[in-house]
Amino acid sequence: MELIKRRGALVVVSAPSGAGKTTLCHEVRRLVPDLFYSVSYTTRLPRPGEVNGTDFHFVSEAEFLDMRGRDELAEWAEVHGNYYGTPVKALEGALSHGLDVLLDIDTHGARQLRQRYPEAVSIFVMAPSMKELAARLRERNSDAPVEIARRLTRAREEISAWRQYDYLIINRDVKEAVDQLATVIQAERWRTSRLTLKFPDVEVPE
Amino acid sequence: MELIKRRGALVVVSAPSGAGKTTLCHEVRRLVPDLFYSVSYTTRLPRPGEVNGTDFHFVSEAEFLDMRGRDELAEWAEVHGNYYGTPVKALEGALSHGLDVLLDIDTHGARQLRQRYPEAVSIFVMAPSMKELAARLRERNSDAPVEIARRLTRAREEISAWRQYDYLIINRDVKEAVDQLATVIQAERWRTSRLTLKFPDVEVPE
Repeated sequence: MELIKRRGALVVVSAPSGAGKTTLCHEVRRLVPDLFYSVSYTTRLPRPGEVNGTDFHFVSEAEFLDMRGRDELAEWAEVHGNYYGTPVKALEGALSHGLDVLLDIDTHGARQLRQRYPEAVSIFVMAPSMKELAARLRERNSDAPVEIARRLTRAREEISAWRQYDYLIINRDVKEAVDQLATVIQAERWRTSRLTLKFPDVEVPE
Repeated sequence: MELIKRRGALVVVSAPSGAGKTTLCHEVRRLVPDLFYSVSYTTRLPRPGEVNGTDFHFVSEAEFLDMRGRDELAEWAEVHGNYYGTPVKALEGALSHGLDVLLDIDTHGARQLRQRYPEAVSIFVMAPSMKELAARLRERNSDAPVEIARRLTRAREEISAWRQYDYLIINRDVKEAVDQLATVIQAERWRTSRLTLKFPDVEVPE
């Protein structure tokens, strides 16, 4: 029984703003070897410290719509007036080379991906409570109060989609939640549905 | 978002004789807290060191067939002329109390369980090769050569069922394989399909 090939797992992580998803996705890359992090395209402006090509591919709206028109996006969404999208080519290249792909996307994007890739593994990350979620958004100084209120309304909508996901991780403590995320990704590596094995039909020695 | 209830996962582990399943299932109970180990009923004679009620419930054929007739077995099988079966009552009691149940059964029993409990998590454990499998069976001094040959033939049949399982673990090293088993069980604890949550519809603080 020789392992011939393993197709990578497409791991989709969603969460309401403030649940800590971005931190978790960053940290889990340190824990889990050979994890391909798909860098999204976006039309939103970089926040301080964000690096083009690492955090996002920052593009103009015209460039984004061109890609979408050429069906080069596995999913796309408009969030708070900005476009976000996942490039097909990098994604499918990684999966077919046996690399697991971590996608950090919103609930609309996740829905599109599950339709296109029904074998995707989806994980919803929550804050322990709405109160905690609001507090975390307020601590993040980059957002204006009106923006925080908008994100909270949207958070409620997103949270209502939790049951459409395969796994739920409640982010009470970053280290614990990162471990849980890594555990799920690790377990999915032994899914029979992604494995190709060869059984040499040798004579069994007596 | 309050976690109201978690239904236990029914974890089914199968393997050809000699793949090390019994050792793995014993060891994983040390690693994973709150794992309910279902003790099977069997009509086979105890091997040296086996304890009634711990390794198996050893019963007569008449007692076994009575239980089966009363539909008190979640699955049953005849293997090498002996009956083996899993009691329904202990199984369902544990699951509804949120305990994960570890079942160590053959491929026929696994098939019955998947039909009765489609939400079961099934794991197939393999030896790294048929040669290795034969060597391990020979090292186990309790079996006569004719019995070893019979087990090897049966092993080939069982191995051909690997794709019907959710996960595949190749037992190259006991410690590594136990870790993998524990990882799968742990990940399955965050499956949304077994969770019941409550979302208090409180006003979001501004």
